[in-house]
Amino acid sequence: MKKSPKKTALSIQPGVGDTPTINPTLQNNLARATKLSVDDYVTGITAGNRAVLSRAITLIESTLTEHQHMAEAVINACLPFSGKSIRVGITGIPGVGKSTFIESFGMHLISAAQKKVAVLAVDPSSQKTKGSIMGDKTRMETLAQQENAFIRPSPSAGSLGGVARKTRETAILCEAAGFDVILIETVGVGQSETAVNSMVDYFMLLLLPGAGDELQGIKRGIMEMADGIVINKADGDNLKRAEIAAADVRRAIQLFPADPRGWQVPVNTCSSLEHNGIDTLWLNIERFYRHMQIKGHFDATRQEQAAWWLRESITEALLQAFHSNKAVAARYAELEADIKAHRLSPFTASRELLSLFLK
Amino acid sequence: MKKSPKKTALSIQPGVGDTPTINPTLQNNLARATKLSVDDYVTGITAGNRAVLSRAITLIESTLTEHQHMAEAVINACLPFSGKSIRVGITGIPGVGKSTFIESFGMHLISAAQKKVAVLAVDPSSQKTKGSIMGDKTRMETLAQQENAFIRPSPSAGSLGGVARKTRETAILCEAAGFDVILIETVGVGQSETAVNSMVDYFMLLLLPGAGDELQGIKRGIMEMADGIVINKADGDNLKRAEIAAADVRRAIQLFPADPRGWQVPVNTCSSLEHNGIDTLWLNIERFYRHMQIKGHFDATRQEQAAWWLRESITEALLQAFHSNKAVAARYAELEADIKAHRLSPFTASRELLSLFLK
Repeated sequence: MKKSPKKTALSIQPGVGDTPTINPTLQNNLARATKLSVDDYVTGITAGNRAVLSRAITLIESTLTEHQHMAEAVINACLPFSGKSIRVGITGIPGVGKSTFIESFGMHLISAAQKKVAVLAVDPSSQKTKGSIMGDKTRMETLAQQENAFIRPSPSAGSLGGVARKTRETAILCEAAGFDVILIETVGVGQSETAVNSMVDYFMLLLLPGAGDELQGIKRGIMEMADGIVINKADGDNLKRAEIAAADVRRAIQLFPADPRGWQVPVNTCSSLEHNGIDTLWLNIERFYRHMQIKGHFDATRQEQAAWWLRESITEALLQAFHSNKAVAARYAELEADIKAHRLSPFTASRELLSLFLK
Repeated sequence: MKKSPKKTALSIQPGVGDTPTINPTLQNNLARATKLSVDDYVTGITAGNRAVLSRAITLIESTLTEHQHMAEAVINACLPFSGKSIRVGITGIPGVGKSTFIESFGMHLISAAQKKVAVLAVDPSSQKTKGSIMGDKTRMETLAQQENAFIRPSPSAGSLGGVARKTRETAILCEAAGFDVILIETVGVGQSETAVNSMVDYFMLLLLPGAGDELQGIKRGIMEMADGIVINKADGDNLKRAEIAAADVRRAIQLFPADPRGWQVPVNTCSSLEHNGIDTLWLNIERFYRHMQIKGHFDATRQEQAAWWLRESITEALLQAFHSNKAVAARYAELEADIKAHRLSPFTASRELLSLFLK
């Protein structure tokens, strides 16, 4: 059902490099730091040009209306080239070693599995200036130097919905640029997992070795979201504790409802430091991919995710329009106070506010 | 913060009976099946008159606009008299024995704990004519005959939001009528648990004896919602299996995140048939109530729930207005198809639809 990619004048490189062959006009525009046109962006991205990709992502992250419109046009034009990757969400509490894991896992994907890997993140608390989650590429030093890796920190602080949306759009551009594995890290302390889960094909939960207690930091519902569970830091003194933790988790997830798609969640141990067990994790994902493809769940899930984002963004836009309505804003706090004091039914209040809004 | 109850001419009975002393006008109106005024309803309900309570609930369940406005006025007038009960949600897969449990538990509350008990239900699939969940009071025969019990089947089929809202409003009227324990049964096969969880103080999950497999029917996230877990049917041959199941569940929930309110979820066995272990379940709820009161979580949770219903009903009303807009409806399916075929970004589509709606 995909439109066939638009023909362009430039030679599209099969690989992803820093300086693919692109047409002279675009090269000139890039060199002179000129504004790029939508066509410039699309041809640059689909040629795998990292500089153009980075600039397009900056457009996505911009708050200027003009940039947002431009970004939207670029995304829509890139959509027919996207969708051919596997998107992997990675979560776990702070301290579980997500960065080291992604470095080790990403290097395995590049060298052993011959993949091109983009690493993105959803961290609504991140402020680029503070250099928090992945703001600092030195945390994935080896991976960052690879020609076949592209690392981009989380869009900076904003609403979770906004940050997640930007990351999802960035993933589409990365796919159009030829990256075939998109790793999306989430900060692992709250609601961001749900947002990430709605944009990935495979959701991986990292845990620490030990039995029971260390799971306490995992928020409700996240363990049940996982397509794969990994006990990280299974090295040195931790080796035995990691095995015990894995057995515990295997027992616990048997109590969970069965996956309606017939997928059995694998529980493995690994050492990011010693690069042990990393290969198995990728084999799991490949097995998952085949399983979902055969059963027809893979595309169905992506379509359902796209429809979910439509509903989400409609709801968000409606609520935004509602709350920025002056008559509504003037009355809202008053009514909410009455409701909390049990003086007024929420439904009466909602009806009054709606009629103010629709007037 | 509550308004003091309006003074009325009638003598308010402390208890709940079938025929409390009410003023002659209301008595006349009731006898002649005349339309009752809002004042009639409120005085009748707060006097604990079951006939008036039933008629008011019928108003809530009516789809006529006139009835809905009347119901809203009655609910708002009853709010100052409400909120003094404890609301207990009860869920579990079909076959776990919810009705028999509620009969046994309800009888215990009435006789041993001297409580007045209302039993409501949220079952979006229920059709009153089909006599499904609790449509038939014979399923709780003994309880239904008690003066201090009031059983009302689920509002009939409709959207989950609508059914849940009606049940929540019914609970408010029951509280105003002097019922001090409100049991709210949910059908236990899907989303209705979330809606019920947002209107109860204590959420109880019933499970069957056995180890592991029988939990498979419980939907994701529901076990983590529970404030108390009960292995039902712990009698006869099942006794040992029930104990094993309880131990299994205790181990499993240790792997769950700790309740931020400091509540340890109790896991107990009981036999509704032999009335064994039922008293402990009520002691757990009393302990929970004290714990939440001391920590200040009880009222905070109710206020948060009320604010949640405000947000929910605003969102629902906005979406309803949006989707009943003709220009939106004409374009929606087309755009959704484009999105699912990955030809269009959900955000572009959402922006187009919003501008159609707000024009």
